[in-house]
Amino acid sequence: MPTDLNDLPSSADVFSAAQRISDFIHCTPLINSRQINDLSCASVWFKCEHLQKVGAFKARGACNALSQLPAETAMVATHSSGNHGAALAWAAAERGLACTVVMPETAPLAKRAAVAGYGAEIVICGPTLADREQALQRVVEQTAAHVVPPFDDSRIIAGQGTVALEIVKQCRAQGFTPDIIIAPVGGGGLLAGIGLAVAALAPEIIVIGAEPAGADDAQRSLRGGVHITTQTPDTIADGLRTTLGQRNFAVIRSTVRDVVTVSEQGIIRAMQLLWTRTKQLVEPSAAVALAAVLEHDARFRNKNVVAVLTGGNMDLNRVSELFGEAEEAQ
Amino acid sequence: MPTDLNDLPSSADVFSAAQRISDFIHCTPLINSRQINDLSCASVWFKCEHLQKVGAFKARGACNALSQLPAETAMVATHSSGNHGAALAWAAAERGLACTVVMPETAPLAKRAAVAGYGAEIVICGPTLADREQALQRVVEQTAAHVVPPFDDSRIIAGQGTVALEIVKQCRAQGFTPDIIIAPVGGGGLLAGIGLAVAALAPEIIVIGAEPAGADDAQRSLRGGVHITTQTPDTIADGLRTTLGQRNFAVIRSTVRDVVTVSEQGIIRAMQLLWTRTKQLVEPSAAVALAAVLEHDARFRNKNVVAVLTGGNMDLNRVSELFGEAEEAQ
Repeated sequence: MPTDLNDLPSSADVFSAAQRISDFIHCTPLINSRQINDLSCASVWFKCEHLQKVGAFKARGACNALSQLPAETAMVATHSSGNHGAALAWAAAERGLACTVVMPETAPLAKRAAVAGYGAEIVICGPTLADREQALQRVVEQTAAHVVPPFDDSRIIAGQGTVALEIVKQCRAQGFTPDIIIAPVGGGGLLAGIGLAVAALAPEIIVIGAEPAGADDAQRSLRGGVHITTQTPDTIADGLRTTLGQRNFAVIRSTVRDVVTVSEQGIIRAMQLLWTRTKQLVEPSAAVALAAVLEHDARFRNKNVVAVLTGGNMDLNRVSELFGEAEEAQ
Repeated sequence: MPTDLNDLPSSADVFSAAQRISDFIHCTPLINSRQINDLSCASVWFKCEHLQKVGAFKARGACNALSQLPAETAMVATHSSGNHGAALAWAAAERGLACTVVMPETAPLAKRAAVAGYGAEIVICGPTLADREQALQRVVEQTAAHVVPPFDDSRIIAGQGTVALEIVKQCRAQGFTPDIIIAPVGGGGLLAGIGLAVAALAPEIIVIGAEPAGADDAQRSLRGGVHITTQTPDTIADGLRTTLGQRNFAVIRSTVRDVVTVSEQGIIRAMQLLWTRTKQLVEPSAAVALAAVLEHDARFRNKNVVAVLTGGNMDLNRVSELFGEAEEAQ
């Protein structure tokens, strides 16, 4: 995919996206847990995007992208480890468009089932970004489908950023402005979108990204100032096994304070806390922001923090594998 | 425990309980799922008592009971498979009272951990109701603790019934009155309380109990008109492995339309639907009401149904055991 960095999204695009998609998506709840607050010595609010349409924030970007398609478009396609694919399949079905989703063989079965459930065609490929892009290229050559990339796309970034507009509004309705908004970063659509929204709406809020130490390209890119595009991600957070997009890097550099990394054990612990304390079924990627608050506690102590719970789609028969050891160790 | 049937709770007791406990408990949300509505051909609302204090409706009854203790009480005790024990431990800790909970060896570890986490002492016993009552009797002889029974108690029944006052209020705020309220029945505290509340507040609502076929004493008692007190419950719904209390039977006879039974497979399927569609982590017992709606669909078709999600406390390392087969079969 060619990248034209003149085509960067702006804060205004986030506000436009919010108007465009408001009839299609949920304004998801903001919840908290006294026990998690006590444990983290912070006031942590969770933005429940696992309760969004298709069970992930990705519905926002897909909906925004499909509301701006060229008029003659009959078919869309993308590559995705799962939630963007489901979101595009859902948004396409709502508009009567055909949809093909290239998915890595490592994608959770639940995510494949969701994509198929919305009526999209699935093409399975290898696990790397290169594998995905090659497979998608073949689909485009065969079908002339309009590609909606999972994150390196201005319409997607603007759409995902709408979550921050809701966060700020909901917090202000409760009488405070958050000190920090922290969100997981994979390709960087969500984080860049939040950065843009906050820069315009409440620049006093610090925006921080969180990623698994085994997929730390965003941190290395941001801290080193050079966009790192090669890595072999190794993490249970399947939604974050992607490298930062070019537009995403450009936006994040100018709007996001830092990216912190978390351990795999920290992700599992955070997910376990979310499941047992809030009773919310979030997927591993969604637990990464809380993992960061707990592993980098000095940074968040006594702050009002909003952590985005990005999605809730996972294979339930993998749960014991994730939680078995943690419970036995109690 | 002696049972004085002159000591039956009234509808007025439910209203009094609501006033007594309102500062301590949550008014839990009422949610729904388009996919579950489509699947059941009904409009099914879920009352989220898994989001209640201690993760279960039991907080209501325990809180109501402890707000009416004899003045000299320094210690309370009970027997419980889990959630009532945690609720009593929580309510006792709030009031600075000592608490002992007799728990069957089959109680989930997560529920034991919760009871211990609120600072109560745990006494482990065998799995039957007789085992529990004997162990509790020994505790009382040794400590002179005030016993707060898990369900066969007017204060408990009235406390649990407050959930129905919220349901009716929340539904009316959304512009409708439910046709049916359906709740799981084990000892019958919740079902009897709902029966009392509805009889006074909205007698046009039909109240139905749901229980596992492997613990069907409430159905047999209600349909046969004779209180059955002996059975060996066999079900994954650990919260429902009790037999109906005497006060509970007396109240349910006069306020509840029917009790329906569900299969173990139906409970697992309903739990899986709730986890994957609503992203709410509910325990097996909590899925029994939805299982009934799905297995007895003719009875609920095109109705406005409220199903009580009773709790969300379970051992996460048992999840694959429950869901493994269901997922493989898809």
